[in-house]
Amino acid sequence: MKPQLKPVRPVTPEEYDEQSAGLRPRLLAAHAKLRTANSSVLIHLGGVDGAGKGAVVRLINDWLDPRGVSTVAFDLATDDEQRRPPMWRYWQALPSRGRIGLFFGSWYRDIVVERVNGDLKRKVFERRMDRINTLERMLVAENTLVLKLWLHIGKDEVRHRLEHLEENPELHWRWLPKKLEPLEFYRESKEVSEELLSRTNTRHAPWRMVDASENRMRNLAVGRLLLETLEAALRLKSPSQGAKPAPIPKTLPKRRLAAVDLTPKLDDDWYGRKLERNQHRLADLSWKLADSRRSLLCVFEGWDGAGKGGAIRRLVGSLDPRLFNVTSYAAPTDEERAHHYLWRFWRHLQAPGRIAIFDRSHYGRVLVERVEGFAAETQWKRAYAEINDFEQQLVESKVVICKFWLHISPEEQLRRFKKREEVPFKRYKITAEDWRNRDKWNAHEAAVEDMLQRTHTVPAPWTVVPANDKNFARIEVLKTVVRELEKVLE
Amino acid sequence: MKPQLKPVRPVTPEEYDEQSAGLRPRLLAAHAKLRTANSSVLIHLGGVDGAGKGAVVRLINDWLDPRGVSTVAFDLATDDEQRRPPMWRYWQALPSRGRIGLFFGSWYRDIVVERVNGDLKRKVFERRMDRINTLERMLVAENTLVLKLWLHIGKDEVRHRLEHLEENPELHWRWLPKKLEPLEFYRESKEVSEELLSRTNTRHAPWRMVDASENRMRNLAVGRLLLETLEAALRLKSPSQGAKPAPIPKTLPKRRLAAVDLTPKLDDDWYGRKLERNQHRLADLSWKLADSRRSLLCVFEGWDGAGKGGAIRRLVGSLDPRLFNVTSYAAPTDEERAHHYLWRFWRHLQAPGRIAIFDRSHYGRVLVERVEGFAAETQWKRAYAEINDFEQQLVESKVVICKFWLHISPEEQLRRFKKREEVPFKRYKITAEDWRNRDKWNAHEAAVEDMLQRTHTVPAPWTVVPANDKNFARIEVLKTVVRELEKVLE
Repeated sequence: MKPQLKPVRPVTPEEYDEQSAGLRPRLLAAHAKLRTANSSVLIHLGGVDGAGKGAVVRLINDWLDPRGVSTVAFDLATDDEQRRPPMWRYWQALPSRGRIGLFFGSWYRDIVVERVNGDLKRKVFERRMDRINTLERMLVAENTLVLKLWLHIGKDEVRHRLEHLEENPELHWRWLPKKLEPLEFYRESKEVSEELLSRTNTRHAPWRMVDASENRMRNLAVGRLLLETLEAALRLKSPSQGAKPAPIPKTLPKRRLAAVDLTPKLDDDWYGRKLERNQHRLADLSWKLADSRRSLLCVFEGWDGAGKGGAIRRLVGSLDPRLFNVTSYAAPTDEERAHHYLWRFWRHLQAPGRIAIFDRSHYGRVLVERVEGFAAETQWKRAYAEINDFEQQLVESKVVICKFWLHISPEEQLRRFKKREEVPFKRYKITAEDWRNRDKWNAHEAAVEDMLQRTHTVPAPWTVVPANDKNFARIEVLKTVVRELEKVLE
Repeated sequence: MKPQLKPVRPVTPEEYDEQSAGLRPRLLAAHAKLRTANSSVLIHLGGVDGAGKGAVVRLINDWLDPRGVSTVAFDLATDDEQRRPPMWRYWQALPSRGRIGLFFGSWYRDIVVERVNGDLKRKVFERRMDRINTLERMLVAENTLVLKLWLHIGKDEVRHRLEHLEENPELHWRWLPKKLEPLEFYRESKEVSEELLSRTNTRHAPWRMVDASENRMRNLAVGRLLLETLEAALRLKSPSQGAKPAPIPKTLPKRRLAAVDLTPKLDDDWYGRKLERNQHRLADLSWKLADSRRSLLCVFEGWDGAGKGGAIRRLVGSLDPRLFNVTSYAAPTDEERAHHYLWRFWRHLQAPGRIAIFDRSHYGRVLVERVEGFAAETQWKRAYAEINDFEQQLVESKVVICKFWLHISPEEQLRRFKKREEVPFKRYKITAEDWRNRDKWNAHEAAVEDMLQRTHTVPAPWTVVPANDKNFARIEVLKTVVRELEKVLE
């Protein structure tokens, strides 16, 4: 649906003074309250060059407390940024709880520029727009209000402003050096922008069109929209309420964990031989990976005591330490807690050529957070689609994903817990929490089964590893990784 | 002083099993305790290629709980890294409290490689070594123990290992592709390394030489040094105790704040004209800066109510939002608190071409933290030299630094506080804390005077701005920045 430009009436300087004097204290008061609220605000600022985006950035910083506003201007991607999925740099810059993020030249600008330059096929263009909608819906669902401002001026006004500029060289600094571009590309930009505005004008994050042909009018319009957004952000309840649960993707019939055959074993002799062979093979492949534009992500989930640590150690045992990185995800830090739950996983994405290993992962959302009630039902139900989308983005930027569920029986777990308590230097591995989790075996089992069913996708499938026998499990993990790498590297 | 290689006796496999079985539980127990301790450990791993550094990385991850160890392998700097001071990327990776950072190819490798390649003049080489010593002393003083392991093997052993490798192609993956380099550069590397080892073999962070010619012997030696270091880390008291206060650099005679002339005023008419002229000038210069390899850092400190926010707004008023970034430093987050106090300032350094504005800054250490007792006397006394060194590194990577102290009288502050309480939309600016700080005016004044005296350096001087008149102060700030930029850009 195309967003509409509401006709507004010009204001006199006196009216402006009066109305802005009424707005500003309310804006500051609302902004001060936001600081301790459970929500954040993301502002996108769009419009043709010359529409006064810079002036609006300054206005917002002037009318609000600038310490609570992070203005982020996105320019060409640096090489670190180019080596990650396109959304990576935006994720890094998302505002934390209580703050306002002001994005200037953001995911919208990228795709307009690429499309106008002819670098983006229609299908990719559409997919990128849909991805933006998905991301914004996700942010809104977790209490980040998204205010999208589009500053509108007509072609005549653009021309008029450029002429004024030509005549007043002392104003040149207001424009980027490439100051004649806006007119040359006006028609193409307009078409692309209009399509973008229609397709991303969603219910949860609509575009707000601002008539920017006159400054006073524009400032008041921006001020009012800001106030409306801030007040809406303050009214938000905790993210668990409000949002409707998303439809759950089901990719497979449910897998019963109880049906997993846990009997496979590997004797030490065979284990030793297979370990050596597969480690060498993996080391070879890791150098090939380093020379390629691809990377590898291995996700390890499993019961407490299932042997994640041991499997990870065998996996990296033959790898050059420069080529891999193990990140253990325990409780989030306060910075992480103040962001969307996926933020900390975006944060540690590796550059191409490298191997990232997640010891526990973003699946915590649908496992421990679900079982312990840290995430409400609407939240974890929504998470399956969000996680699939996250992994899809990784796959599109050439990440090979291997996901392991290390499965043991409750009896085997008990045996291992007891053994850990007996061995002095393994005692640190077992805590009261492990025993508590064990009591909730059934709840965890249901969560795992749902996870396997709903996130087992073609580009990022799960491997359920029978792990009652450690030898067997370790080789199984190594073999799977070797196989997946061979598929893409050879 | 040259570090010594202690002669050790080879161990039999049986002795090895027995001794490692004794070591490992103690290592794990110490590592488990470190998690909740008030200290961290940084391990540097050095030695010629082929000495078995990769194997030692794996050993450490195997003998300790790998979740508490961050192994960071530094390779060529990315362009984001090249655009910052050389130490920037290492600062990003320093271990937080309770953790072990294992640096593989770190600040030591950089300078050996550059020196062997002839890219580093003797004087620069020496300065870089001294800087390493300074940084390590600083880390040790704040409870990061630094364990520097140098794996030693003789030239014959290197040759022997290479020959063994030639004959066993299945082992090739253990070596980087450039596997013949070690011998070619052996002599030069050895000379450079020996000088490096001598000069950086300090009392607070000595090199520990490990005979790496035989694996069992090497493993046990590494294990024992690790245990010794972990146990020392656990014995550390809070950083305030222990360390001796550093000698305080005095660059200037003490400046009495009371002697600052606070009468200068600027009427609104003149102010308007000067504001416009200087803002245009600055906007011009900011584009020139963007084209240069330089950047600008403006530090704002001053009394509560002195008008930092207003001065910052006028300073950036004419700037393109893509060119600057304002960071407000309030209380640190928990991730920041778990690092050295300078970590969060390193974290937000801008790339060249940009303007960074710090609203409050690293000077908090010698101002509010001193006055409120958050930093002990030894800590804030040490901080003057640490801050000067930090700024010196910025200056060396072409950052222009302008530091402002906005000065008002206690009477003017009282007037402003009262006025803020009267104006509804300014009320958010004044808190109980502001009134409490006011009661400690004298203590703050002494801290400011010490700061001005001890950190007013040639490359990074302070500007004390009389700010009883806001017009005057804002123009003074703008003029100073314009003048400093003109010096380097024109």
